[in-house]
Amino acid sequence: MSTAHLPRIGLVGAGIMGKPMGLNLLKAGYTLGVYARRPETATDLAHAGARLYPNPAALAAETELIITMVSDTPDVEAVLFGKDGIVLGAKSGLLVVDMSTISPVTTQTMAQRLATQGLRMLDAPVSGGEAGAIAGTLTIMVGGKAEDFAEALPVLTALGKTITLIGDHGAGQVVKACNNLIIAQTVIAVSEAFALAQASGVDLEKMRTALAGGFAGSKVMEVHAKRIIEDNYAPGFKAKLHDKDMRIAAQTIQSLDLNLPSSQLAIQYMHQLVEQGNGELDSSALAKIVQQLA
Amino acid sequence: MSTAHLPRIGLVGAGIMGKPMGLNLLKAGYTLGVYARRPETATDLAHAGARLYPNPAALAAETELIITMVSDTPDVEAVLFGKDGIVLGAKSGLLVVDMSTISPVTTQTMAQRLATQGLRMLDAPVSGGEAGAIAGTLTIMVGGKAEDFAEALPVLTALGKTITLIGDHGAGQVVKACNNLIIAQTVIAVSEAFALAQASGVDLEKMRTALAGGFAGSKVMEVHAKRIIEDNYAPGFKAKLHDKDMRIAAQTIQSLDLNLPSSQLAIQYMHQLVEQGNGELDSSALAKIVQQLA
Repeated sequence: MSTAHLPRIGLVGAGIMGKPMGLNLLKAGYTLGVYARRPETATDLAHAGARLYPNPAALAAETELIITMVSDTPDVEAVLFGKDGIVLGAKSGLLVVDMSTISPVTTQTMAQRLATQGLRMLDAPVSGGEAGAIAGTLTIMVGGKAEDFAEALPVLTALGKTITLIGDHGAGQVVKACNNLIIAQTVIAVSEAFALAQASGVDLEKMRTALAGGFAGSKVMEVHAKRIIEDNYAPGFKAKLHDKDMRIAAQTIQSLDLNLPSSQLAIQYMHQLVEQGNGELDSSALAKIVQQLA
Repeated sequence: MSTAHLPRIGLVGAGIMGKPMGLNLLKAGYTLGVYARRPETATDLAHAGARLYPNPAALAAETELIITMVSDTPDVEAVLFGKDGIVLGAKSGLLVVDMSTISPVTTQTMAQRLATQGLRMLDAPVSGGEAGAIAGTLTIMVGGKAEDFAEALPVLTALGKTITLIGDHGAGQVVKACNNLIIAQTVIAVSEAFALAQASGVDLEKMRTALAGGFAGSKVMEVHAKRIIEDNYAPGFKAKLHDKDMRIAAQTIQSLDLNLPSSQLAIQYMHQLVEQGNGELDSSALAKIVQQLA
C-alpha cells in the first residue's frame, strides 16, 4: 500500500494504549505525528517511523485528524485547551477523535467549545484493553456527527473491530460507562454465586463449565471467572483504571439524578478494592471484596 | 431402534416441562410410564404411547429409573414419601432422578432417607425452559454418585445437551440456584445500564449491538436485553417460576449464613415484580422494577 495518499494522523498519548495504537496506524501505512507528555514513552513509535512533536499545538498544525488517548477528563481538557493545546495550533476543520475514557457531560461541553472555534470532535472510547490495542481488535464506541464518523472510520478500522456510531457527542462515553458498570456487576454476580457454591462444597470449575453455555453465560463467565477460580489476578484491566472509569460513571449517574443501586454497589466495591491496595490487580479481583463480605 | 432393550422409565409430572420431556423419551424409544396429579395433563403422552398409572407407588413398582418433574420442594417430598408415594412401591435399587428445582438442603436429606430404604437419588435440575424441554436441549446440572450418573446419562441425553455431574447430592440444585441468581443479576445490570443510557438520550439497540461482542457481552445481553428494549415480556421463563427458584436460593443463602448483597437485591426485585401482578411475564421484566426505582 502506498503511503502517499494516506493523511498524516496526529496522536496525543503514547501510554499502554496509545503506543500499540500508534504502531497499528504506522502498520496500516499512515504518516503519524506523536506528542507524548513523557517523550521517552514515544521512543518505539519514533523508531517505527513516527515524527515526534514538542507539544499538541505543533502537532495539530500539521494534521487533519488528531487522536487523543490520555488518562482522564482533566488531561483531555489540558491537551485541547491548555498551554500549547490543540486549539492553539489547529487548522480550521481539524477533527479531534478523543479515544480516552472521560466524562460524557464534559465531552459534550468540549465538543461545543471546539465547534465555536471551527473544530470538530468525536468521542470514541474503547474497550478490549492493552491486548485489544496490540491486536487492533478494540471495540470502539463513537459519539458525534455521522459525517465526521465516516471520515474517521478508515483510521479507526486500523485500531478496532467493532466500531459503532452510537449517537451524538458524549454517546460513546455513555456506552463506555455502561460497559464498565455491566462488567463489574457481572463479576460481582459470578463471585457471589461462587461464594454460595463454595460454602456448599461445590467444585467451582465444574459449575463454571455447566453454566457457561446457558443463560448465565457471559464473557465474564468465560474469562474473569477463570481468574477468580485460580485466584490469579494478573491484569487484564487494572482495578485502578476500572475504578477511575467507575468514578466517571458515578458522576454521570449523579448528574442525571438517577438511582441505580446495583451499579452503586459495583462502584463502591471497586473503590474498596483499590483502597485496599489492590489497584494493580485485574479488576475481577472484585471477587476479593465479595469474599470478605460473604 | 428396537425398544425391546430399553428399560421402562417412570415419569412423575406432566406439566409445562414434564410433558415435552416425556415425549422426547418416547421418541428416543423408551417405554414410558407416567403419573400426573391431574391425569388430563398426560393425555398427549398417553396418545404418544405412554402408560398412565394411578399413583407414584404403582409406577415405581414397574420401573428401575423414575424421573420426578414437579413444582416445588413439598411436591417432591409428597411424591416420594407421601400417600401412595414412590418409596411405598419401589423395588430395591430404584434410581430416582429429581429434575425439579427444589432446595439443595432438603435434597441432601431426601437422598439420605432414600438410601436407608435401599433407593438411590440424583438431583438433576434443568435450565433452558419450555423451549429447551421441547427441543431436547436442556442444560442439566447433576448431583449424586458417579455410578448413578453413568446409569442415568443415556436417559438424560434424550432430554438435554450440556449434562454435567457437579458433585454429591444437592450439588445440582446449588448450581441451579446460582444459575438463577446470576441471570437475575445480569438482567438488573443491563437494565440499569439501559436506564443510564436512556436518560442520556442514547439509542438502546445501538448500545446493545456495540456491547454484545465485548466483555459486557452475555446471553442476557443477546436475548433478554432485546425483550427489555422492545418492552415485550412474552415468556420465556415466567417471573413467578423464577421467583419460586429465587426463594429456594434465598433459603439456601440463609441456611449457610452468607451475606450476598447483590443476590439479595435480585431476590427482592423478583419478588417485587411478582407482587405487582407480573408473575406471568418473562422474568426479564425485572427491568420494570429498575425503571420504577431509577
